[in-house]
Amino acid sequence: MEKNLIKADLIIKNGLVVTINKEGQIIEDGAVAIKDDSIIAIGNSNQIMDQYFADQVIDAKDKIVMPGFVNSHTHLAMTVFRGMADDIKLTDWLHKYIFPAEKKHVSRKMVEVGTSLAVAEMIHGGTTCFNDMYYYQDVTAEIATEFGIRGIVSEGLIDFPVPNSPTPKDGMEFSAKMIEKHKKNPLIDFGIAVHAPYSCSENLMIDAKKIADYYDVNYHIHVAETKWEFDKMIAEQGKTPVQYLDSLGILSDNVIAAHGVWLTDEDIKIVAEKGVGIAHNPVCNMKISSGAARIPELFAVNAKVGLGTDGVASNNNLNMIQEMNTMAMLHKFNKMDPTVFSAEKVVRTATIGSAEVLRKDKEIGSLEVGKKADIILIETNLPNVTPIFNVYSSIVYSMLGNEVTDVIINGKQIMRNNILLTINENSIKHNAREFSKNINLQIS
Amino acid sequence: MEKNLIKADLIIKNGLVVTINKEGQIIEDGAVAIKDDSIIAIGNSNQIMDQYFADQVIDAKDKIVMPGFVNSHTHLAMTVFRGMADDIKLTDWLHKYIFPAEKKHVSRKMVEVGTSLAVAEMIHGGTTCFNDMYYYQDVTAEIATEFGIRGIVSEGLIDFPVPNSPTPKDGMEFSAKMIEKHKKNPLIDFGIAVHAPYSCSENLMIDAKKIADYYDVNYHIHVAETKWEFDKMIAEQGKTPVQYLDSLGILSDNVIAAHGVWLTDEDIKIVAEKGVGIAHNPVCNMKISSGAARIPELFAVNAKVGLGTDGVASNNNLNMIQEMNTMAMLHKFNKMDPTVFSAEKVVRTATIGSAEVLRKDKEIGSLEVGKKADIILIETNLPNVTPIFNVYSSIVYSMLGNEVTDVIINGKQIMRNNILLTINENSIKHNAREFSKNINLQIS
Repeated sequence: MEKNLIKADLIIKNGLVVTINKEGQIIEDGAVAIKDDSIIAIGNSNQIMDQYFADQVIDAKDKIVMPGFVNSHTHLAMTVFRGMADDIKLTDWLHKYIFPAEKKHVSRKMVEVGTSLAVAEMIHGGTTCFNDMYYYQDVTAEIATEFGIRGIVSEGLIDFPVPNSPTPKDGMEFSAKMIEKHKKNPLIDFGIAVHAPYSCSENLMIDAKKIADYYDVNYHIHVAETKWEFDKMIAEQGKTPVQYLDSLGILSDNVIAAHGVWLTDEDIKIVAEKGVGIAHNPVCNMKISSGAARIPELFAVNAKVGLGTDGVASNNNLNMIQEMNTMAMLHKFNKMDPTVFSAEKVVRTATIGSAEVLRKDKEIGSLEVGKKADIILIETNLPNVTPIFNVYSSIVYSMLGNEVTDVIINGKQIMRNNILLTINENSIKHNAREFSKNINLQIS
Repeated sequence: MEKNLIKADLIIKNGLVVTINKEGQIIEDGAVAIKDDSIIAIGNSNQIMDQYFADQVIDAKDKIVMPGFVNSHTHLAMTVFRGMADDIKLTDWLHKYIFPAEKKHVSRKMVEVGTSLAVAEMIHGGTTCFNDMYYYQDVTAEIATEFGIRGIVSEGLIDFPVPNSPTPKDGMEFSAKMIEKHKKNPLIDFGIAVHAPYSCSENLMIDAKKIADYYDVNYHIHVAETKWEFDKMIAEQGKTPVQYLDSLGILSDNVIAAHGVWLTDEDIKIVAEKGVGIAHNPVCNMKISSGAARIPELFAVNAKVGLGTDGVASNNNLNMIQEMNTMAMLHKFNKMDPTVFSAEKVVRTATIGSAEVLRKDKEIGSLEVGKKADIILIETNLPNVTPIFNVYSSIVYSMLGNEVTDVIINGKQIMRNNILLTINENSIKHNAREFSKNINLQIS
């Protein structure tokens, strides 16, 4: 007696499936069936194999199967500046190195070389979606589309001439054009990016917000990253950065506030009420000594919190597993409380939390029927991941960041057994090395 | 015209040689020649290949060649408890999980299984020497010798009956016997280990110190790990933990003080003057919220400071690259100063710094002619390590911890292209998984 099996395109079976669904369901010997770009079934391996067949079946024995990581704040192209300026003061870092280096070196070529390297690195680390703010973002959107990674891409608007846009008005027109262009791109959402309240005029911030609202796209902005910024806003506007933005009518649920380190109790209330998403970047915040974002307090009021790496100039990698580890360590230390939040909460922040911040939680961030198939497989048959008592603990505390073996984005396999399938990795690394040779460190 | 070439056993050529010598010398296209257990030459690849030949030549193109990491404080066998009890209060962790689990599960078998897994993990991570405090340490010494890793091993002495030693006296006799037994073991130094000033009587600590001094071996002790300990010592002894130990005449240059988190200015002065080595464990200190050791202040007075992972029950891995990253992040954040110390200083702490703490800096911790050949090769042809502007920065900030490909200890190759040569890794992982199945988490 033959059963009527349903045809899938790809089945992943025999894995430890960590769904990140609302109930935090974990399926010990689990399987996921994928058709086109979406998940069509999840369950016990036997049960799935009893109902579905597919040309490609991946055996995920000894592997975790989970949603890909969502990097909620980064500047991808800056990989070519990796390690250029470390262990120096924030003001020196920015004014003596990063800004001059950007002025001299940012170009279409730089964005192509740097973003390509970044995408290769992200896929190795299990990131399946990113939120990027930089320049020449038409290039970034093209590369992401070509390589097959999901991203929210926006062109940095700021009150001085930047590469690609002589004036903020040019930048806004460019952004609007790009939003239209990528409307039907299944991988790319173009959005609006405004640098920061201290570097942009009120008019720029407000006009940009109008465009974001008109097109219903995200509004990505650095907010309250440093004490310097907080003090400056208090001195100049008589308001905290958050309350200043709120007074301009900018804060609503399409706003992604990167960092959000220096928040008052009132700011936290506003962030939660307005549905602003906070993109938390613990490695960057520690490395350049900005401070500890008030993540436990934001969790307490159910604010949207995601995890991001920031650019590698202040990290210096794009690895979300390392970022999760640092997030956990930072807040346990900062609150002197090991129970401040659990490893599970950290993993949720790096997946569904970031997806909520990017307003993409209906599509990605968990393994659920009907969602996009953005799935990673993680090796556990390694000394540092043996034994496993709690899978979240293994991911956050025991793993190093290189354990991801397979990546599927939008139903398409992008990495198989650590080999990138859509990217010529050697040529990308070569190009980045060649480009970096021309960067003159004697900048100031 | 034939040259008279000198015969070496092994030459590593074409690498980026990071010597960690006093001058911090880096050789761009460097080579290291090894004969028996020692380094006999270091220099430019052409120059070395002009003077030496060997049956085995390793091409280290695209690789860093540097001294192996020295883990200055750990409890190796606890790998079988990895991830057993996270995100809980320190007192619960210790009294509801760790102590009961140890009481129930510590055995010769547990030490064999756990230490084997630990050694496999350490070698993958580039650790070539460890300083271990645990029980059944005859087993640990045997496994380390068999697998070919260097270690300082000591049996934990404490004022209650422990596995292997019904009384501290038994433990001391056992230690003395083991010190004698391993005197000529090229890889193992047996030492003395006393648990902590709050868990050991004055007599025990003093008697143990006499043995350590008699045999001129290290005296490994947890000191000032938590505020609870600090307050308890003040209340009971009227002295800080450091000053209490000093008043007993215990502090001298063979003392390895693990943690040293809660030190006063006066304590720091004493530590430096007496030549006590501090084994810094930043991941553990953050994860169980013990606090930030005053490492910048210890550096300022040239105290001996090394880096350690502690046991995986509080880490949860034995990776020194991750530990270096966390060390850097913790102190930049804690001092709100990104210049607090450099990536180079961090790498030195994990190598020659730890070697000084273990009083083995004449033998290991840097690549210098006459020193033991404890050498690791690290892959740099990876997206997250591209480009390289500063090699220390790449190691501390960009790497994840799995980039080590080859490990040589005491002149003998232990790992080649990520494959362990002296260890059956699959059988070790299998044994650890089987053992962990019997651990009952419903302990309290």
